[in-house]
Amino acid sequence: MNNFVFYNPTKLVFGRNTVEKIGEYLKKDKIKKVLLLAGGGSIKKNGVYEKVVRSLFEHSIEKVEVWGVRPNPVLSKVKEAIEIARKEKVDAILAVGGGSVIDSAKAVAAGTKYEGNVWDFYIGKIKVKEAIPLYTILTLSATGTEMNGNSVVTNEDTLEKYSFSSIHVYPKISIVDPEIQFTLPANQTVNGAVDAISHVMEYYFDGTSNTQLADRIDESIVKTLVETTEKLLKDPHDYEARANFALSTTLALNGISGLGHSGGDWSSHAIEHALSALNPDVAHGAGLAVVFPAWLTYVKDLISDKLAKFGVEVFGIEDGINALKEWYKKIGAPVNLRELGFEKNDIEKLTDIASKMAPMGRLKKLEREDIKKILEIAF
Amino acid sequence: MNNFVFYNPTKLVFGRNTVEKIGEYLKKDKIKKVLLLAGGGSIKKNGVYEKVVRSLFEHSIEKVEVWGVRPNPVLSKVKEAIEIARKEKVDAILAVGGGSVIDSAKAVAAGTKYEGNVWDFYIGKIKVKEAIPLYTILTLSATGTEMNGNSVVTNEDTLEKYSFSSIHVYPKISIVDPEIQFTLPANQTVNGAVDAISHVMEYYFDGTSNTQLADRIDESIVKTLVETTEKLLKDPHDYEARANFALSTTLALNGISGLGHSGGDWSSHAIEHALSALNPDVAHGAGLAVVFPAWLTYVKDLISDKLAKFGVEVFGIEDGINALKEWYKKIGAPVNLRELGFEKNDIEKLTDIASKMAPMGRLKKLEREDIKKILEIAF
Repeated sequence: MNNFVFYNPTKLVFGRNTVEKIGEYLKKDKIKKVLLLAGGGSIKKNGVYEKVVRSLFEHSIEKVEVWGVRPNPVLSKVKEAIEIARKEKVDAILAVGGGSVIDSAKAVAAGTKYEGNVWDFYIGKIKVKEAIPLYTILTLSATGTEMNGNSVVTNEDTLEKYSFSSIHVYPKISIVDPEIQFTLPANQTVNGAVDAISHVMEYYFDGTSNTQLADRIDESIVKTLVETTEKLLKDPHDYEARANFALSTTLALNGISGLGHSGGDWSSHAIEHALSALNPDVAHGAGLAVVFPAWLTYVKDLISDKLAKFGVEVFGIEDGINALKEWYKKIGAPVNLRELGFEKNDIEKLTDIASKMAPMGRLKKLEREDIKKILEIAF
Repeated sequence: MNNFVFYNPTKLVFGRNTVEKIGEYLKKDKIKKVLLLAGGGSIKKNGVYEKVVRSLFEHSIEKVEVWGVRPNPVLSKVKEAIEIARKEKVDAILAVGGGSVIDSAKAVAAGTKYEGNVWDFYIGKIKVKEAIPLYTILTLSATGTEMNGNSVVTNEDTLEKYSFSSIHVYPKISIVDPEIQFTLPANQTVNGAVDAISHVMEYYFDGTSNTQLADRIDESIVKTLVETTEKLLKDPHDYEARANFALSTTLALNGISGLGHSGGDWSSHAIEHALSALNPDVAHGAGLAVVFPAWLTYVKDLISDKLAKFGVEVFGIEDGINALKEWYKKIGAPVNLRELGFEKNDIEKLTDIASKMAPMGRLKKLEREDIKKILEIAF
């Protein structure tokens, strides 16, 4: 087990009828005006927006709204929101949406306090030193962003999909109400499951030894995701399944799943980011369903014992990679690049984009050549 | 699953050679003078005290020392330390020790800021509203106090062993270096294991349904404690076992093990507190090894499925209670009141003390009569 520092100051408010508490929490924190950041409008259909607006109104909290954060969120929208946050002198950002909205909101929270180009955080030019407080209401359990300091955004000009991480952008309060996810399309639940399982696997398979407790917790998270995803595909309104699913996705990337690990491998994520950078219609979870098993196949000799343990613990089958792929098929996730609409000659382009981050990975340092081979396996 | 709020702002600094970082952390937080609270002197034997003193000196941090916190810590020592903290105008409390020292330090941190009697927090007369910052260096993994806001102290005048809980006394930074536990006597490791397993079981068996993820995490913690305790009884210097053991005891009571539960049952703990209030030589873990299986036996019809699941998952045996008792025997923990030195006619006295807290429990509300029966089973 490696030395580690665990520090997660997000207050997680979890359960039924918690969305309507947002005004109360903001008032307690003396917030008077927020920038409400949102996506394409689904929160108007499922009633979340109305609940939020009413709660803000009842607690006399002013708001200015910025809409239109899209899946695989883009830098231009972040910059637009930063301008508005500054002009309107808001005290806090309130993100109401899924991973894209919350990731963008983190950049807005930090960018509002930074004179330079917010992209500097993503390219590692500068570290975040401060941010205005961020509050989140999660509408789609998947990325775990509701309880960590990570943000991933795409720069449309350069097709770079990069991330930054900072303690300053952990949500101060994060509301997760599983009930508001009853009406999600099935494929979003599937993509969320794949995303969260991938987060756990990035740690689980990073090559660190003697992480017995973390390994068991990781298997617990994946088992619960497998079990609840199957239940939700049958009955999207199963509250208990939604709640266990939601909590699993949060714990998959709030630090708990990686305790004592060497920070995770993250090659599969980096390679996947190339997919959605080239084709923004590729959902992150869908891309991971294709890339992660390909990476596992490429490195399998380095982790043969762990793969067998994973397979047996989660699926009752020793061939962990095959068990995972079969389960992805079963729940309707894509399992190769062709299903995502990529063609043979895209491999070179994807390799080019992903290789900007090379060498990558911890279990095995991947160079351009390795990345290309993994993409070929994924094809 | 129940609604919940999870908020744990302790920064956990975990691993080898972390004790010597205390000065650096305190300096970063602008702490200039601490009250160093300690126990009977074991930290002078194992080298921890020397490391702490050197680190404080190197970072120009003044200290005043208060020694003599004993196992099953007492109110008089807390009051003594509060007086000194006030007189010396310290900026923070630095607890260096096990659960007793840290629990006492929490009371000192809160009591220093409170004009009245610090016992008021324990009897629920008043809630903690503020505290001076608390820093901890854990020398004995057991109670989980290093990453929560709980404090248990005995009032020697009334023989009451009560607790309070407050967000204000979570350690700001908590250092856990498994290596400094190499020299612990075996029975302290055993008691620590029993204590932590009992914490998990208080949640696991509290009667809440549909807590699939928390249940699996709980089983993970207990499995890891069982595995590592056996390893440590063979080789107390096994770092990886110490580290997994230590992390398991922390997670057993930092909020993670009870996610979505109804707060835990805690009858066994309340009854055990009577044991060590009557006889302060009874270690908390040893008392729990006797009381918890007795409680399980008394309520077993209410949790038969869960007991079978627990038994199978942890020990591979359906009779969960018997498996647990057999394992306690195997590791050398006591399994009845007689082994702890109690006699038949102590049952009435213990019932009297424990019943001050009655009715208690969530799974089953226990009255005086129930408590007496459980103590008879335990005898």
